[in-house]
Amino acid sequence: MNPETPKRNVYLKLKRLEEARRLVFEHFELTGTLGTERLAVPDAVGRVLAEPVAARVSSPNFHSAAMDGVAVRAADTFGASEAQPRRLTLAKQAHPVNTGHVLPPDTDAVIMIEHVLELDPETIQIEAPVFPWQNVRKMGEDIVATELLFARNHRVTPYCVGALLSGGVFEVTVWRRPRVLIIPTGSELVDWQAVDVKQLRPGQVLESNSIVLGKLVEACGGWFERCDLLADDLARITETVSRAVAGDFQMVMTIGGSSAGSQDFTRPVLEDLGKILVHGVTIMPGKPVIIGDVKGKPVFGMPGYPVSAIIAFEQFARPLIFKMLGQPDPQGPVVPVAPTRKIASKLGVEEFLRVKLGQVGDTIVATPLPRGAGVITSLTEADGIIRIPHHVEGFKDDDAVHATLLKPVETLQNTIVVVGSHDNTLDVLADELMATGEGVSLSSSHVGSMGGLMAIRRGGCHLAGTHLLDTGDGTYNLSYIRRLLADTPVRLVHLVMREQGLIVPRGNPKGVKGIEDLIRPEITFINRQGGSGTRILLDYRLGQLGLKADEINGYTHEEFTHMAVAVAVLGGTADVGLGIYAAAKALEMDFIPVVTEQYDLAIVARFFEQANIRLLLKIINSNRFKQRAVALGGYNTDRTGELLL
Amino acid sequence: MNPETPKRNVYLKLKRLEEARRLVFEHFELTGTLGTERLAVPDAVGRVLAEPVAARVSSPNFHSAAMDGVAVRAADTFGASEAQPRRLTLAKQAHPVNTGHVLPPDTDAVIMIEHVLELDPETIQIEAPVFPWQNVRKMGEDIVATELLFARNHRVTPYCVGALLSGGVFEVTVWRRPRVLIIPTGSELVDWQAVDVKQLRPGQVLESNSIVLGKLVEACGGWFERCDLLADDLARITETVSRAVAGDFQMVMTIGGSSAGSQDFTRPVLEDLGKILVHGVTIMPGKPVIIGDVKGKPVFGMPGYPVSAIIAFEQFARPLIFKMLGQPDPQGPVVPVAPTRKIASKLGVEEFLRVKLGQVGDTIVATPLPRGAGVITSLTEADGIIRIPHHVEGFKDDDAVHATLLKPVETLQNTIVVVGSHDNTLDVLADELMATGEGVSLSSSHVGSMGGLMAIRRGGCHLAGTHLLDTGDGTYNLSYIRRLLADTPVRLVHLVMREQGLIVPRGNPKGVKGIEDLIRPEITFINRQGGSGTRILLDYRLGQLGLKADEINGYTHEEFTHMAVAVAVLGGTADVGLGIYAAAKALEMDFIPVVTEQYDLAIVARFFEQANIRLLLKIINSNRFKQRAVALGGYNTDRTGELLL
Repeated sequence: MNPETPKRNVYLKLKRLEEARRLVFEHFELTGTLGTERLAVPDAVGRVLAEPVAARVSSPNFHSAAMDGVAVRAADTFGASEAQPRRLTLAKQAHPVNTGHVLPPDTDAVIMIEHVLELDPETIQIEAPVFPWQNVRKMGEDIVATELLFARNHRVTPYCVGALLSGGVFEVTVWRRPRVLIIPTGSELVDWQAVDVKQLRPGQVLESNSIVLGKLVEACGGWFERCDLLADDLARITETVSRAVAGDFQMVMTIGGSSAGSQDFTRPVLEDLGKILVHGVTIMPGKPVIIGDVKGKPVFGMPGYPVSAIIAFEQFARPLIFKMLGQPDPQGPVVPVAPTRKIASKLGVEEFLRVKLGQVGDTIVATPLPRGAGVITSLTEADGIIRIPHHVEGFKDDDAVHATLLKPVETLQNTIVVVGSHDNTLDVLADELMATGEGVSLSSSHVGSMGGLMAIRRGGCHLAGTHLLDTGDGTYNLSYIRRLLADTPVRLVHLVMREQGLIVPRGNPKGVKGIEDLIRPEITFINRQGGSGTRILLDYRLGQLGLKADEINGYTHEEFTHMAVAVAVLGGTADVGLGIYAAAKALEMDFIPVVTEQYDLAIVARFFEQANIRLLLKIINSNRFKQRAVALGGYNTDRTGELLL
Repeated sequence: MNPETPKRNVYLKLKRLEEARRLVFEHFELTGTLGTERLAVPDAVGRVLAEPVAARVSSPNFHSAAMDGVAVRAADTFGASEAQPRRLTLAKQAHPVNTGHVLPPDTDAVIMIEHVLELDPETIQIEAPVFPWQNVRKMGEDIVATELLFARNHRVTPYCVGALLSGGVFEVTVWRRPRVLIIPTGSELVDWQAVDVKQLRPGQVLESNSIVLGKLVEACGGWFERCDLLADDLARITETVSRAVAGDFQMVMTIGGSSAGSQDFTRPVLEDLGKILVHGVTIMPGKPVIIGDVKGKPVFGMPGYPVSAIIAFEQFARPLIFKMLGQPDPQGPVVPVAPTRKIASKLGVEEFLRVKLGQVGDTIVATPLPRGAGVITSLTEADGIIRIPHHVEGFKDDDAVHATLLKPVETLQNTIVVVGSHDNTLDVLADELMATGEGVSLSSSHVGSMGGLMAIRRGGCHLAGTHLLDTGDGTYNLSYIRRLLADTPVRLVHLVMREQGLIVPRGNPKGVKGIEDLIRPEITFINRQGGSGTRILLDYRLGQLGLKADEINGYTHEEFTHMAVAVAVLGGTADVGLGIYAAAKALEMDFIPVVTEQYDLAIVARFFEQANIRLLLKIINSNRFKQRAVALGGYNTDRTGELLL
């Protein structure tokens, strides 16, 4: 094979996560390495104090009136009552004060203005006594000069600004931000700032990891600099890392090339410049991370897949950055969840499974997202992470499962969970829901129409999108609901009529005219998964036409959404697929209509009156939604919002 | 009375919080009022999308190898086995690829390099088949061109940057930041930037509320401008508000003067320029808030007390800012807590009680902080807020009490709860704990030595500071522990020996020489609360000297800490108090030694081996702690760390 031929991957002995973390965290001496800077207090919000801070003045620095009224010596009021009112002479015994005023000399209490009767310009009368220091804010009530306001390593909040300024502290000493150099490497990468996205060639990859990790560094309180993209060039990478470590950076990260192939240069760089602590951790994603020490500073080789890079960052780099700042690494809250399906996993590997979460009744249901290390959307869509320990092969139905939340728990209560058939108008509903600003979101998982009804039966969702054709009478959904959901009352709301048809490349190069063409030997088909309404429709039409499934090339190759089918055709994986017009239109492909079908939402009856569902129904019935659906193409909204059950 | 004389406070009809919030939130039409701006994606982190964002390219935009290995047509591998290995010709049937490479034409699978045997430079051999698309990242696996990446009002996270750039989206449209003008008013205010803190005169108040509220605006995603301080001048305040509303601000806040006294100008300003919606809400702190509409924009009159201003901001202004941004107002998690003492409250008022929280065993204990609206440190020290509804008069022992957390719940598990006698070395311990960077903090509440032992008995703390003199045998703490904590095993660790004595103004103007001087008629004393070790010490010495408590002026006037006693003397409230040397030294006052006493920590035995307590003990035994204690003055650390029980 040629010199670029891959070699067998050889890691150092793979380490378990906990072992690798302990090794790395115990290795580095980072406390106090950052240096400090002086900042004006308002500029210090979000920063971490490098020294304890003591108050310089008391607050208040004088006894003051806590009420509007008259200041008096309490002793002058003793004995006053309704029966025996007491008169006091203004300017001598009684001094008008507003809240906050300095208490006049020789007074020690304030009578509220509501309890004062003005007899004449020189005299007031009271009917009750006050006790000493009543209605007085005493000097130092809030802050006593010299007392500790904040300990070292306290993170300054907006509230702190109040205490600091009130305590006469106008400048504080904070840790400098940890400075991280990020070096994206890989000859396939292109810089988003230097490319016309329309000209992107196959094989070119838009580099984004460096910015993602950089922004994560900032979120920890650090600062980052992003290097220009480096090709897979050992000498240049070595030189860049070497210079950064010698300079003012506390941490260096290369991205890409951290594995053990022929083009993976991080390991030789670290072997050359310093010492490797960890290469390869039994986690998924994130396995090919490499962690070394160069001149006492942590240098990371981050994997090139985005989710791998992020998980390696969060497990190793983030805790070190927090450690430099004297902060614990914050952990999200962990809650018990009910997965919507069985979760298998590989023994010996700790998996970070991204899940969508939503509260259905009293249960937080968790729907696994795609597990690939390259699927960044599995993180942007995730509400939580289920960690599957290395010693189990996934979770069974009755296992206790927990997820670490990525969002505040209350957002889960405001998530409408939709499981079932996929339709592009669900995205429109999601967007319109968000547009209300009420904080209600729609989380949809695509498991096909039957999968949706099963999820309703298991209590795994609020509603399901469904387009199940009863091949006996030509109706949609009703007969399936009666049969499958006899014990779970649901309402059925009509969403849209939509066109299903054959999606083919632009120009229809293979001249596909209808379902009957699918058996042509030179044609490869891409199918939808069993249980999807589209699959049922296909099988029904095949039966009508007397065609057999095993006559069709690619019948067993399944995708889960209309868009995935369209992309498979666009990318040449297949010549034709069955899907909705909106998917073909979105990708500017050709479309041969097969049938107009009915797509409805089955909504669990006990949630039907909930505020979130009412809001969704309001949107479904709005002209705005209908217009946007029609604009997608292939939709008819004449009966949208009709209650069918 | 003179023209500045306070008038009786007259609010509009006071409103309950929920009613006032509904009225305000329903009044303003804010959605879509901000305007938008275009930002490069990396600059959009933390901002809110004003439009839904769809992908412009698929990611990956080509089929690519998901493994290092050789790309093949899967069909060429069918039938390969150990018994019948299959040979493939390089460059024709088998193409070496690294992870991420474009799949060569006419290939649809990748064989991992580990499963490839190289026979000669032209031939490889395999012993197992691959199925179509195995080890291939298909085009669009992550992102399909045209699909919705993020709905409107989605807040951009670091993860989102990855999805946006990968999807070919380099710029996004976000809402402009809500712009808030903040106008501090009050003739007593001084600007921290324009004052020498050493020259601060009684009656002058360092203005800090405007920065605190401004930083809270920023924390919501807004932007603020702070006006120069305005004196209590109706015309200038009116003009400033009027100009701001006509300009590019979405919200205006004056601070101070929101009540109904003679110097309270917010109400006449709003009556002049617009319409008042709310003046006075039955909350504490925060009652005198005023909320008006000037040209459709919310204008707030915030109370001048810092905690009032913050609570009014968080209840009214923050939700409106989030509403402008299409975001729900985030609520902290709510957890059940056990108050360390009964909590009384006023019927008809909803109180926001600031509490320290810490987990002791399985219980989160809540210690109320000072309730005054002027005590900003009650917020900086708070871990949570207990809301006491208007229809109850506080909580009784068995009431279910909940607190809204201001900090992540895991910080409560890392808080060492100290309740009991106050000593300045506790601050040193707190600082040294924070300095470790382990995230362990010390939360101490000062209720006196007896109060601390009672808290241990109730399970309300991990440990208690105590210096209880057994007047029978002259020992400290042991006999009290045996008597009071017979059922709760504790360990007793000696912390410091310290000097107690009489604290007097510098120069000792009244010539105090000892306890016997306290009965002199021209001398006013300031006492410590009953149950404090210092009070017990005083009463013991009075008994020895044959003096009676009621002979002492001020005996019934109690403070809760040594520092508060020292401040009372410094401020002229009293002539003399009994307290520790460190307090006198901190405020540069004179000190007449009375006794050297023993201050110990009683630690609940079942927590003694916990990691947090071990860390505390390590600090107590460190030279660093001892040196810092000695530097405070009046401490002896010869036996510090000794285990007494």
